[in-house]
Amino acid sequence: MNETTPAAPGPTRSSRNQTAAGQSGAAGTDAGLLAPAWAGTPVEPDVSDEAVLAALVDVEIALARAQARLGLIPERVADSIAAAVLARPLDLVDLARRARDGANPVVAFVRALTDAVAAQDPAAAEYVHRGSTSQDILDSAIMLVAERVLTRLVDDLSRVAHALARLAEQHRDTVLAGRTLTQHAVPTTLGLKAAGWLHLVLDALARTQQVLATGLPAQLGGAAGTLAGYAEYAAIDRGPGDGELPEHGVELIAPFADALGLAEPVLPWHTLRTPVAELGSVLTLVTGALGKFALDVQTMSRTELGEVAEPTAAGRGASSAMPQKRNPVLATLVVTAARQVPAHALVLAQSMLAEDERSAGAWHAEWQPLREALRLAGGAAHTAAELAEGLQVHPERMRANLALTHGAIVAERLTVALAPVLGKARAKQLLGEVTSAVARSGGELAEALGGHPLVAAHLSADALADLLDPARYLGAAGELVDRELRRYRQAFGAA
Amino acid sequence: MNETTPAAPGPTRSSRNQTAAGQSGAAGTDAGLLAPAWAGTPVEPDVSDEAVLAALVDVEIALARAQARLGLIPERVADSIAAAVLARPLDLVDLARRARDGANPVVAFVRALTDAVAAQDPAAAEYVHRGSTSQDILDSAIMLVAERVLTRLVDDLSRVAHALARLAEQHRDTVLAGRTLTQHAVPTTLGLKAAGWLHLVLDALARTQQVLATGLPAQLGGAAGTLAGYAEYAAIDRGPGDGELPEHGVELIAPFADALGLAEPVLPWHTLRTPVAELGSVLTLVTGALGKFALDVQTMSRTELGEVAEPTAAGRGASSAMPQKRNPVLATLVVTAARQVPAHALVLAQSMLAEDERSAGAWHAEWQPLREALRLAGGAAHTAAELAEGLQVHPERMRANLALTHGAIVAERLTVALAPVLGKARAKQLLGEVTSAVARSGGELAEALGGHPLVAAHLSADALADLLDPARYLGAAGELVDRELRRYRQAFGAA
Amino acid sequence: MNETTPAAPGPTRSSRNQTAAGQSGAAGTDAGLLAPAWAGTPVEPDVSDEAVLAALVDVEIALARAQARLGLIPERVADSIAAAVLARPLDLVDLARRARDGANPVVAFVRALTDAVAAQDPAAAEYVHRGSTSQDILDSAIMLVAERVLTRLVDDLSRVAHALARLAEQHRDTVLAGRTLTQHAVPTTLGLKAAGWLHLVLDALARTQQVLATGLPAQLGGAAGTLAGYAEYAAIDRGPGDGELPEHGVELIAPFADALGLAEPVLPWHTLRTPVAELGSVLTLVTGALGKFALDVQTMSRTELGEVAEPTAAGRGASSAMPQKRNPVLATLVVTAARQVPAHALVLAQSMLAEDERSAGAWHAEWQPLREALRLAGGAAHTAAELAEGLQVHPERMRANLALTHGAIVAERLTVALAPVLGKARAKQLLGEVTSAVARSGGELAEALGGHPLVAAHLSADALADLLDPARYLGAAGELVDRELRRYRQAFGAA
Amino acid sequence: MNETTPAAPGPTRSSRNQTAAGQSGAAGTDAGLLAPAWAGTPVEPDVSDEAVLAALVDVEIALARAQARLGLIPERVADSIAAAVLARPLDLVDLARRARDGANPVVAFVRALTDAVAAQDPAAAEYVHRGSTSQDILDSAIMLVAERVLTRLVDDLSRVAHALARLAEQHRDTVLAGRTLTQHAVPTTLGLKAAGWLHLVLDALARTQQVLATGLPAQLGGAAGTLAGYAEYAAIDRGPGDGELPEHGVELIAPFADALGLAEPVLPWHTLRTPVAELGSVLTLVTGALGKFALDVQTMSRTELGEVAEPTAAGRGASSAMPQKRNPVLATLVVTAARQVPAHALVLAQSMLAEDERSAGAWHAEWQPLREALRLAGGAAHTAAELAEGLQVHPERMRANLALTHGAIVAERLTVALAPVLGKARAKQLLGEVTSAVARSGGELAEALGGHPLVAAHLSADALADLLDPARYLGAAGELVDRELRRYRQAFGAA
Repeated sequence: MNETTPAAPGPTRSSRNQTAAGQSGAAGTDAGLLAPAWAGTPVEPDVSDEAVLAALVDVEIALARAQARLGLIPERVADSIAAAVLARPLDLVDLARRARDGANPVVAFVRALTDAVAAQDPAAAEYVHRGSTSQDILDSAIMLVAERVLTRLVDDLSRVAHALARLAEQHRDTVLAGRTLTQHAVPTTLGLKAAGWLHLVLDALARTQQVLATGLPAQLGGAAGTLAGYAEYAAIDRGPGDGELPEHGVELIAPFADALGLAEPVLPWHTLRTPVAELGSVLTLVTGALGKFALDVQTMSRTELGEVAEPTAAGRGASSAMPQKRNPVLATLVVTAARQVPAHALVLAQSMLAEDERSAGAWHAEWQPLREALRLAGGAAHTAAELAEGLQVHPERMRANLALTHGAIVAERLTVALAPVLGKARAKQLLGEVTSAVARSGGELAEALGGHPLVAAHLSADALADLLDPARYLGAAGELVDRELRRYRQAFGAA
Repeated sequence: MNETTPAAPGPTRSSRNQTAAGQSGAAGTDAGLLAPAWAGTPVEPDVSDEAVLAALVDVEIALARAQARLGLIPERVADSIAAAVLARPLDLVDLARRARDGANPVVAFVRALTDAVAAQDPAAAEYVHRGSTSQDILDSAIMLVAERVLTRLVDDLSRVAHALARLAEQHRDTVLAGRTLTQHAVPTTLGLKAAGWLHLVLDALARTQQVLATGLPAQLGGAAGTLAGYAEYAAIDRGPGDGELPEHGVELIAPFADALGLAEPVLPWHTLRTPVAELGSVLTLVTGALGKFALDVQTMSRTELGEVAEPTAAGRGASSAMPQKRNPVLATLVVTAARQVPAHALVLAQSMLAEDERSAGAWHAEWQPLREALRLAGGAAHTAAELAEGLQVHPERMRANLALTHGAIVAERLTVALAPVLGKARAKQLLGEVTSAVARSGGELAEALGGHPLVAAHLSADALADLLDPARYLGAAGELVDRELRRYRQAFGAA
Repeated sequence: MNETTPAAPGPTRSSRNQTAAGQSGAAGTDAGLLAPAWAGTPVEPDVSDEAVLAALVDVEIALARAQARLGLIPERVADSIAAAVLARPLDLVDLARRARDGANPVVAFVRALTDAVAAQDPAAAEYVHRGSTSQDILDSAIMLVAERVLTRLVDDLSRVAHALARLAEQHRDTVLAGRTLTQHAVPTTLGLKAAGWLHLVLDALARTQQVLATGLPAQLGGAAGTLAGYAEYAAIDRGPGDGELPEHGVELIAPFADALGLAEPVLPWHTLRTPVAELGSVLTLVTGALGKFALDVQTMSRTELGEVAEPTAAGRGASSAMPQKRNPVLATLVVTAARQVPAHALVLAQSMLAEDERSAGAWHAEWQPLREALRLAGGAAHTAAELAEGLQVHPERMRANLALTHGAIVAERLTVALAPVLGKARAKQLLGEVTSAVARSGGELAEALGGHPLVAAHLSADALADLLDPARYLGAAGELVDRELRRYRQAFGAA
Repeated sequence: MNETTPAAPGPTRSSRNQTAAGQSGAAGTDAGLLAPAWAGTPVEPDVSDEAVLAALVDVEIALARAQARLGLIPERVADSIAAAVLARPLDLVDLARRARDGANPVVAFVRALTDAVAAQDPAAAEYVHRGSTSQDILDSAIMLVAERVLTRLVDDLSRVAHALARLAEQHRDTVLAGRTLTQHAVPTTLGLKAAGWLHLVLDALARTQQVLATGLPAQLGGAAGTLAGYAEYAAIDRGPGDGELPEHGVELIAPFADALGLAEPVLPWHTLRTPVAELGSVLTLVTGALGKFALDVQTMSRTELGEVAEPTAAGRGASSAMPQKRNPVLATLVVTAARQVPAHALVLAQSMLAEDERSAGAWHAEWQPLREALRLAGGAAHTAAELAEGLQVHPERMRANLALTHGAIVAERLTVALAPVLGKARAKQLLGEVTSAVARSGGELAEALGGHPLVAAHLSADALADLLDPARYLGAAGELVDRELRRYRQAFGAA
């Protein structure tokens, strides 16, 4: 509604009302109304503001636990923190808004957490966030969140892989038209197409597993990456003469990472952003792999092709207007994720250009893109699993489509067959002329070729019929499927 | 916390609890915990899921109103819709999740809205969404949202412009070091720097106003852009013999756009996405313009430069660890927005590659990036206004910095002055040698040059002192400020 | 060839030889071997290294001419520069390589140019690049290049518009299947599709013309944007008492811009990069508009659809292996440009984040992306003109495709027709069931519906046949075509 | 010069002339006039059009060699191809222009190559490109080019690593101000900064080596990825009864990959683009790593900081106007590469969305971005090596800068020291007040604190002086340097 024109009485009443709520100070709901690619999928709660806040708490608890393990602070501090936020949950909206004061949410968070602990266990409050800095907490929290999503991705990509492997196996020899630059090229098999999709998914899975195996790193560096604050408190906390305890802070890294289940970094990585850039590239690979599969499903389900269809479910794929529509919605959700994630990954990659010991903008530009890339990938993998597991195949439409060019789909084969007789160039030219004539005037390539004196002289009608059978011009399609299935079985440790 | 290891008793208790809520079905809160660039700014409620949902309702109301204006449906339907959502608010989370079934939220929305109307006014329910299609509703709703944000941007960019114009005027002749490739180059003025920032903001403002003046278009096309559904219902609704009413649907566009306060499009633009791509480029221009200003503020507030400082406010710019810190947080928030928006605009631009009459993925990939770009731009403009209005200037630090190179900052001027005597090349070489010697061994350029026989022969000590005064080597800086201020006054209609 | 393994005797001999040439110091040839989107199109020479070098010379000549016009330097200097480069052409490769020393090519260029002038007219050499700075020369040169390409774009976009307007007119009523999310939706017309493509092209054309009308700006600011160097020389050049000549340098801007045929900027824009960012967004709009057209051509030429075909030419669209192939190569070239340009525009947009009075990296990152975006857009427009002018249309395939769903393509219409009888919801449900049954078991919707008691009771066989005719369910398609053609005629000033 | 205005006589004569050459048909020179980031660096000839063309020849030779190894074609064919292009070099420009006909350069290339062979050895010509398809040749050629660049990257990244390791070692304990959000934070060491840069370079190096170790894959699939064309020729070539030779084509993959020194792929990857997307992400990591180093060098060489300087060389870093300038040009070249490569990688990532068995646009959009990303990365690595090896360090400026805040740089430490006495919150507040007063009114923190009763009561003057020494507040900086150097030594196999 154009705010500059006088408000018509009726039309916007409801909107004004609902909007008014927002303006009065309530935060919005992150339901993904405009993001069906992840709304309602299992990844959603993993990356919500609530999940990030919970992870921030987890990190402060882990820090306290690590410091306690070194004898620096009382053992009970970690439990006191956990108990405090249970007793007095932090106000997410308030924290988000106070994040403007520090350009990050941790300054306000630490204050609120400390207050919450102080209300329950005043002595423990002194030990909260001891020696720490905002970025240690936030980076570690985001790595926790990312690791959860990657773990989920491994599961869902495995489901996709299993389903595609079954598809490749079942349809190892199901023939359909191979298409290049939108045109029928030569025959191929659904098995080989599925093996190709599987190939990409195994690539993406391997990269995801590799990142998990290396481990996402905890962040611990203190104010400018020297760990000086931690060391200084440690020196105080251990008291005089307690020589076995750490002097420099570096000893805190391992137990802290351990308490979080994250990897121990060699250095604090406040402005060494390989881990974040790599996450971006892995998520891009995941949605790119799934996107190729989904894009092919969309193409093959075009009304004119009709070779596959999405698994049906009540209400799915319906249009608000057209009763006959069965839209490929799962594939669309996956494709739309694949169109967005590379742009998020780009922002993450550019944030490697981070000046000094903490950048003024590059770091801050990572958070939303990473969060959105994580949930788009998570949603896409979940959706692709459903799509792959329920994909419907219509071999009869594949056969019908193969016949559309009246034999021209094996023109390459005929060229080869005639090459020894006519020479490669002359053979290709002849086939070009004949297929072109067939396309123009109708008829079948079999007849047109059979009637050609040069061809008839060298190929019997039977030989020609055999050469023109698409199912007999599949090259190594079957063997290639087998190669990929061997890779698949190896990846999953099967015989 | 690594989910694959057995859960340690304490550390993650709180997180598990909070996360559990998410998994049980509650949607997250969109508080911008990771987006301080917009969290808590006025733009936040404009683009929330709630605002989008309200806009969807507004669009259905406008459609009913337009159809009633043509006599096709009863006048009261629009009011019945408005009353129905007041009486029975729609369940945002449920709609968002059911959006997966249709790959867009409108199919479920229409069903829920129709049910809500039917509960209050069963006869009216038959007229809800009459002849329409999901994309008409969603595109129009998003244009409503975008227009509100653009209107807000005009206000905030104007505030920034006013503040920068004042700054340019006040500091028209305040001298500081011009810097190129990070090095002192020649003197310039804060006035000219501010005029430059103003220039960009006026560029961005003009483009925003241009888009608003042209008007964001309503979307109305029906199932595939022919308006056939609308026309078909119109034919039924008017009944036999009622020849004056529309037959083809095209007559519905103008009153529909009018009811929304949006522009009337020439064609339905389901896959003609100029309006969305243009929004992306305007928002990029806005954050780019503000980002340049903020980036300069960051540089000039470096500890070593200290030429400007952000407006202070209680708690702002604080660090969680370092008590002395006054971080340039407002500038950081603006810069971080400017780093992200171009990536969103890229996705919008790529969505112009939309096949057929409705694309399967490209359209869907627009929604989140546009929403995020709108709020990043809105937050950045609000923040930049605060920054520009309260910017603190330290002319004494500017003077001190000018002296850092001991006169070399006007070496270009000396070259020019000696060129008639020595020739341009020889003069430049000489100054290169002398400034280099001064940089190496200390001392002042004045002395080094004064002691040079070639120079002394042609320039008196007074002439040399005059040439070495940075405040006298400003070229047209003042006049350039005046030029930009004239443009500024013109833009705002002042004399 | 893997360089780490011992070289096999034969395989790489040729490559080694050719590569060797490169290693010995010869620069490569920019023939666009990997860029068929622009290789060999008219835009190619406009943006080559040679063209940029020539534009650099043009800018120095224009500067000399402007300074002469103000009486500051001798009139003949400009001609001496022109004569000098004719007599002793500059060594492009040498300049490009010496660009590393200054991170831009102008420092070395000015030295070489001055030497060339000195060789011919020693006195004139003193006046070359007088008071100037690298960025003034390079930015102005790039704007010259850009303006030439935009002018060419206007021509080629106009050709595309004319061809699409003709297509829309000729096929105003040619019926084909409207498709949404890859599925048949409701009928539409080729006229409306063409009108949509025309719409985008007119949008892109208008934006291009708007940029040309506003004018791309010359760049003139001197070392740090104050014009001080120009002013200082002017003060010397005019001599004592010559009070009418400029003191501050600002007077030089207009005649300089005029000599270049570029617009006069309000301010030097060394780090105010709106002009470059806007170029990026215009070029994105151009390739996005053309890309949508090309993408639809690709889809419609799929073997299974066959509704349009590219204009044939000897050898075009051929495959290296398959004699029957007629690939949609023109459309592919356009699409591939449209996939790349947004990424270049993104880099340009991000370069708005340029610190100080000259950025150390952001400016330098603009040159190649702008150059590549210009030639991709130029090549795409040229190619799209050929495609639009020669597009082959197959209405018989369109009709055949319309029949593929056995009537379901007008299911929406039937829903509307039955809504007054059954209610909208029940009607939609009924059509959903019947179309689904037809899709499953074959047959025609006409029979299935005719045999349904509820339908038969309300619709005669004739009425049903009429409702099922796709050509009678086109809504406002024809009128929409007429609207766009009116816009087209207005844009080109026709009656 | 505006082409639409009548040409002024002088100004553009030279440009017209030079441009004319381009228009007459000559291709431009790829000298990188606008790309000093790679112009003239060793990577330049690796990725030129000439290098790509040579690689195309290499691939055809390797194919012939592999087919000969299987006994399918005569041994001498490979040598005949090599001899033919030596005798009659292919016309690069002509091939590039004829690439428009096929939307790729290989169709024309194969024809020209076959003709060249036929001219020398007519019988061999029949065996050129036998059974093959354009994409097999082009993808394999591009992988050859990419592998050469990656191999070069390993060398240059190693040089950078060695230099940075030396720097970290030498300056392990050189103190300077740690900076966060542009402000002095706490002290750190140049050693730790250098260790951080080294860390990123080792990350990038490891990823590059990983890709090389896995091996870039050869491409072999035939027309649609089934290898049918190869198999069909093989069946003919082996003749009847020759049962040991391959029937399906799959056996050709290994010897072909072997002849090229590339990896054997599991499947043809015509539309399975992991290898290309991964190259993009590795190159992004490389330039991101180097860019962080360069960005810090730029910041630290700011006139006001002056902590490091680039290695000098005659003429380097000079300005065309300002004789005193020493611009950080090497760093600028590296940064500018790092700003561009992520955008190219994005296009590569998006090309994973490749439909069917060969995409119509996505594949074609990879070539230029990959080529440009390769040479930007190659140029950046070469440049960064020079920068790292010659970096000049000014510890005296570092010390001077540390004193700028009069002690506030260790305010965190004082907070910690006073925390046990005052409590953490009260201590932080006190330090905030005192540092703020010092910043406002001058003086030294030592005095201000020493005069404070609460502080004086607990800390002796000596203790305070000790606490205020930046060199004593370095936490684990030294140990962290040692950790990274251990990693460095491990990476290079040293003890």
